[in-house]
Amino acid sequence: MNQSPLSRLEADLSAQGLDAMLITDPKHIYYLTGFASNPHERFLGLVLARGEEPLLIVPALDAEAAAAASSVTNIATHSDTDNPYALFERYQGRLGRMGLEKEYVTVARYEQLTAALGAVNFEDVGPLLRTLRVKKTPDEVARIRHAIHLIEETLRQGLSHVRTGVTEIELVAEMEYQMKKLGADGPSFDTMVLTGPKTGLPHGTPGERKLQHGDLLMFDMGVYAAGYASDITRTFAFGDISPELKTIYNTVLAANEAAIRAVKPGVACADIDRAARQVTEDAGYGERFLHRVGHGMGIDVHEYPSLHGQNMDTLQEGTVFTIEPGIYTGAGGVRIEDDVLVTENGVEVLTSYPKELQILTD
Amino acid sequence: MNQSPLSRLEADLSAQGLDAMLITDPKHIYYLTGFASNPHERFLGLVLARGEEPLLIVPALDAEAAAAASSVTNIATHSDTDNPYALFERYQGRLGRMGLEKEYVTVARYEQLTAALGAVNFEDVGPLLRTLRVKKTPDEVARIRHAIHLIEETLRQGLSHVRTGVTEIELVAEMEYQMKKLGADGPSFDTMVLTGPKTGLPHGTPGERKLQHGDLLMFDMGVYAAGYASDITRTFAFGDISPELKTIYNTVLAANEAAIRAVKPGVACADIDRAARQVTEDAGYGERFLHRVGHGMGIDVHEYPSLHGQNMDTLQEGTVFTIEPGIYTGAGGVRIEDDVLVTENGVEVLTSYPKELQILTD
Repeated sequence: MNQSPLSRLEADLSAQGLDAMLITDPKHIYYLTGFASNPHERFLGLVLARGEEPLLIVPALDAEAAAAASSVTNIATHSDTDNPYALFERYQGRLGRMGLEKEYVTVARYEQLTAALGAVNFEDVGPLLRTLRVKKTPDEVARIRHAIHLIEETLRQGLSHVRTGVTEIELVAEMEYQMKKLGADGPSFDTMVLTGPKTGLPHGTPGERKLQHGDLLMFDMGVYAAGYASDITRTFAFGDISPELKTIYNTVLAANEAAIRAVKPGVACADIDRAARQVTEDAGYGERFLHRVGHGMGIDVHEYPSLHGQNMDTLQEGTVFTIEPGIYTGAGGVRIEDDVLVTENGVEVLTSYPKELQILTD
Repeated sequence: MNQSPLSRLEADLSAQGLDAMLITDPKHIYYLTGFASNPHERFLGLVLARGEEPLLIVPALDAEAAAAASSVTNIATHSDTDNPYALFERYQGRLGRMGLEKEYVTVARYEQLTAALGAVNFEDVGPLLRTLRVKKTPDEVARIRHAIHLIEETLRQGLSHVRTGVTEIELVAEMEYQMKKLGADGPSFDTMVLTGPKTGLPHGTPGERKLQHGDLLMFDMGVYAAGYASDITRTFAFGDISPELKTIYNTVLAANEAAIRAVKPGVACADIDRAARQVTEDAGYGERFLHRVGHGMGIDVHEYPSLHGQNMDTLQEGTVFTIEPGIYTGAGGVRIEDDVLVTENGVEVLTSYPKELQILTD
């Protein structure tokens, strides 16, 4: 199990009956080579061909950065006046089946590849690549821990700005300011701060609503740092909240904890979802839990696996994912989201921010 | 010239000999219908077929928002369990040539379309769509003015945090905080704040460097607001700077003004670039002006036209673009960027933030 992801992928080449594979999603290339970049419209690709050394193709202006960072040392460059697809002519007539990320590669690129390569059967290797990233190395887990530390510290600092009359947008600005000050590269998705009845919208957008006594206050946010994401949700009471909202809070907390208890290698993703949903159903809120219980997290904030009721894939040691049950009503909603790691015998909860109902005041 | 963009595009359908066109870039759909959305991985498409009413295809959860915002009222929806490509079966066998954005559509979507439609010749209509957006309406110009107002106010507010020892990242955080507080949707690109010798890197990344006396200080930033972008660069002196840096500043300012004076309908894009470059060459800095003089701006922060030395397309009234000459040296760099509108007889500079060298102090 100490093989590098790239070696494992090279082994897959034969297993899948492919002569070659072209990988162009920069996140996959970062994962496989250690070279992180945003090539914008320029061509970036990693070519694996059976029996040949892997080849990394980068824009000329990234040549130095690629040489410094990439574990693949066979690097070809192209300037803005070159046709990068000319680099594929060496494979012409030699490839029967070639792997490609069909949900990532555009038709324009596909046509240029076809022109350079001649007749080739292209197979979708997107799912294979996403599956490869599911099991994290200790280094990856360390980076995720760091991204989680930064977002939890952001939440702690940002909470000092909570007061009667503050708007959702102002709190978003405060939180994103703290992220940057703490050294994060930026938010890993649009920072969500919702108040009062708006917490009842699972995909609500922060606006001008002012916080008032008796509101629920929900933060769903994360950062990117050193190439990896974090993602946490906490819901607070601002002053006294109704007994029903307290019941909802405690139900969601129990669902979150039940799902965490269910995590260990070999358990189906669907069973984690079920463990949480059982709690909300027993409390009479089953229909108010409007989304899957969680999603994988790593280089992308949303990655494999998807923790929903139909996913019978089983968890493996080293997988990192979110557990985020929620209940949404007209009076407000509660979601409590942790990031967890599947360990040899069970689970480690990577997020540490307290989860008991906390009542904030001016 | 009072035709809507959608009517103009329908006229292009015949002119290009196309039987139909499928548009899937949400920015183009916003431009053509007024419906702004981010469908994520779900299918969003606008179908124009000759002799038929335009058809907007949206995910079911966006049905209400689309009906409220879209000028196209013929709307088909699909839920997450539907196959959205089944909606294309009605066209099967009827389309010989179909327009598609080949640099936007993925291979996966292309294959699903082909499966639904049968044999069709797909033509790239990306350039046609981008060209359509070049000439702005008064409403579009008003939105751009608003986005410019917000970024100039951001710059004014944010400058109060400039002091010895402040880091680039802290200033980025301050600026992005101000954007949000002022009501922008967010930055239109990664906010760039560079100090000292780092201003000499045209694509430098803000970091932990601390501002010190004698530094140049460069801000390149913009916002999205009401669907439109702004983009401005200003460079300041922090305390006394060297005579050479002052010369560079005044050369860039003269290049900026020369390019602005060259703008009027009918002039080639290349000539605007040339006007600025002549000034930097005459001052002996020609080789230090490392990029094109500007780019179109609107719904996207970078759009058509591209103002570079090889672009012989001519400017037309209503076009909005940036003018941003720069000189980059080891001791530091200067860039001064305005947003301009081509008027009937010349140019209106939309940005109003002062451009004379301003010396900031603690």
